[in-house]
Amino acid sequence: MFLAQASPEKLRTENIPLGSALNRVLAEAVVTSEDLPRFDRSAVDGYAVKAKDTQGASQFKPRILRLSATDIVGSNQARELWTGNPLPRGADAVAMLESTKQIGDGKLEVWVRLTPGENVSRKGEDLQKGEIAVKAGVRLKPQHLGLLASIGKTTVAVAEKPKAAVLVTGNELAPLGSERRKNQIFDSNSVTICSLCRELGAESVDLGIAKDDAEEILRKLRVGLDKADLILTTGGTSVGALDLVPEAVGKLGKPGIIVHGVAMRPAMPTALALVNGKPVIILSGNPVAAMVAFEVFARPLICKMLGMKRVESRPFVKAEMVRRVSTALGRRTFVRVKVFREGEAFFAEPVSARGSGLLSTMTRANGYVVVPENREGIGQGEHVLVYLFDDLELSESV
Amino acid sequence: MFLAQASPEKLRTENIPLGSALNRVLAEAVVTSEDLPRFDRSAVDGYAVKAKDTQGASQFKPRILRLSATDIVGSNQARELWTGNPLPRGADAVAMLESTKQIGDGKLEVWVRLTPGENVSRKGEDLQKGEIAVKAGVRLKPQHLGLLASIGKTTVAVAEKPKAAVLVTGNELAPLGSERRKNQIFDSNSVTICSLCRELGAESVDLGIAKDDAEEILRKLRVGLDKADLILTTGGTSVGALDLVPEAVGKLGKPGIIVHGVAMRPAMPTALALVNGKPVIILSGNPVAAMVAFEVFARPLICKMLGMKRVESRPFVKAEMVRRVSTALGRRTFVRVKVFREGEAFFAEPVSARGSGLLSTMTRANGYVVVPENREGIGQGEHVLVYLFDDLELSESV
Repeated sequence: MFLAQASPEKLRTENIPLGSALNRVLAEAVVTSEDLPRFDRSAVDGYAVKAKDTQGASQFKPRILRLSATDIVGSNQARELWTGNPLPRGADAVAMLESTKQIGDGKLEVWVRLTPGENVSRKGEDLQKGEIAVKAGVRLKPQHLGLLASIGKTTVAVAEKPKAAVLVTGNELAPLGSERRKNQIFDSNSVTICSLCRELGAESVDLGIAKDDAEEILRKLRVGLDKADLILTTGGTSVGALDLVPEAVGKLGKPGIIVHGVAMRPAMPTALALVNGKPVIILSGNPVAAMVAFEVFARPLICKMLGMKRVESRPFVKAEMVRRVSTALGRRTFVRVKVFREGEAFFAEPVSARGSGLLSTMTRANGYVVVPENREGIGQGEHVLVYLFDDLELSESV
Repeated sequence: MFLAQASPEKLRTENIPLGSALNRVLAEAVVTSEDLPRFDRSAVDGYAVKAKDTQGASQFKPRILRLSATDIVGSNQARELWTGNPLPRGADAVAMLESTKQIGDGKLEVWVRLTPGENVSRKGEDLQKGEIAVKAGVRLKPQHLGLLASIGKTTVAVAEKPKAAVLVTGNELAPLGSERRKNQIFDSNSVTICSLCRELGAESVDLGIAKDDAEEILRKLRVGLDKADLILTTGGTSVGALDLVPEAVGKLGKPGIIVHGVAMRPAMPTALALVNGKPVIILSGNPVAAMVAFEVFARPLICKMLGMKRVESRPFVKAEMVRRVSTALGRRTFVRVKVFREGEAFFAEPVSARGSGLLSTMTRANGYVVVPENREGIGQGEHVLVYLFDDLELSESV
């Protein structure tokens, strides 16, 4: 419901050099303007030949061809060429270097029987003129950049980075690097939420800390609304008296709060709002709950604002639960787990059934399991899908 | 063998602000200098109570407590508090807001039976003084930054980004954006290899294109050796006459080439060298082979140079091959596949058994399967492990 309404204005795009486009999201499909390759070319290092001249050739019974002195390959002739070189006129196949041997006197042994077209990249075989090279909404990986380079694209139109304003609230919070009062704790949500935004390709605008004060919150929210495309807040969203942020957001503009309270755990007090067309996600002050709700609500939103067609999937792995976890009926529960491997099998160890305030559970875990709201837990030995937010540390050591 | 010898000089580190440390690799373990939390604090919004005062309480038989007017919780008293607040003196548990109701006249109904410590984050429960908060060699994700912030770290020591010089070679290559000659193709390897380096957290130094000319190659390699911590080249590494790059690397310094030719496919002509302690990876000019060999040799090397303890694992998924793929005995083969889902099951469709020169096979595929050298292929219906280099596009649309 929230995502459907949080339809950002028309995607803003910018043209950037291909070399800076890693991990940006392509805004428009790139159509190939010429065949790739533009000409038949060798796919290997070796000798261009006529395939029929290699009939019957084998390691035990090589065919002897004569090296061509010109750019043309005649009958029973061969011409040396390298990967990527245009196929010389007259040739229709390439014998790989390791299947041949120059035996002196301008002669070449060929030990392999070739079919026409063998080891040749045909004109248009990679991409044909008019074909879509990379679709709109794709996050550009090295392979996409390589393909776009090979068809001559020097710049690409990508989605502008959405600006995400991050406001943390709470009298108990001291800014990192400051002198804390005795009952204060350092704000950790700013750096966590800002980095989650940046990880997805949004630009974070850190609005700092607001006290539990309606006026201060509203003032800082206005700055966010002015500077950013979406606002993320943490804290002040309980069901109690200090329900300050949802109230402030209500005053900020229309339609205001759309959802307040979500049947999930952690992160029940999450609220979702829209203000003058800009989405506002009101996260719990609890650092773990804030991260989980970010995953559930902000991640799809930012993907959508980047023009992606679907939520980018986190890596996942199927694993066996090593012990039972109980969850509350009627609440979709996000259980942090540590995945480890024994032999070929993967196991998931719940890191903490409670303690949603403990940030270390997020660093001790490397993934989470979603327990549906119609279940009361996961049994020991049950197979679950774990979504991974950290390295599995399974690879060989270096 | 190569990795063992390519031991970089002592890890160079730099101190950077926590807010800039996303995806950097921690150079030294961070030890917690004080308990986290520093004091017993509430894990929820609600009321601090003495657990024993809630004995027998239920939704049908609430206990009535009196709201404390002071900072102390006495017998049969309750004091409102918020997530993160220190637990008041006298209290040993917190009733969640939603399990309570203020019924006026300074009285509170409590509907839940609490045990001592319930909904309380105990001093040191998250991290204890002296405990390692984040280990050396860990790539810092948002959750690590959050944890480091909560223990007051304002800066962290991370590995300096290793500098990777990238030199592409070949007369057939025209720089992107230039006028190509008729038989030339645009260089795509520069942008691919440079982005692969950056993706892993190395800094790329683009040395441009060298002609197939021993002198020019040597000159540019010297620039790379001077500017960078490792060198990656593409092209000029066939087993044939234009074996220019390995020869030039041999002249560059000692010990020179360690490995030339690898029993893998694609990327057989890959060569590995060490020059004055700096690793040089000589990749094939074939763009797909270059990417595969990067994965096999450069990825672990860069992880090692970053001080990571193991190669960062790519996401993977088990899938069923939809058709047979033949591979050559004696060569470890990297088969590109497109993974898709039907219901609960994952399938892998080989994208191209040949055509290792076709970059589009890397964008049509989203992963690869490793076929061991003692196998002649993978049968249809066989279950394989696919390493993913692109999004699975499985999630819901947005």
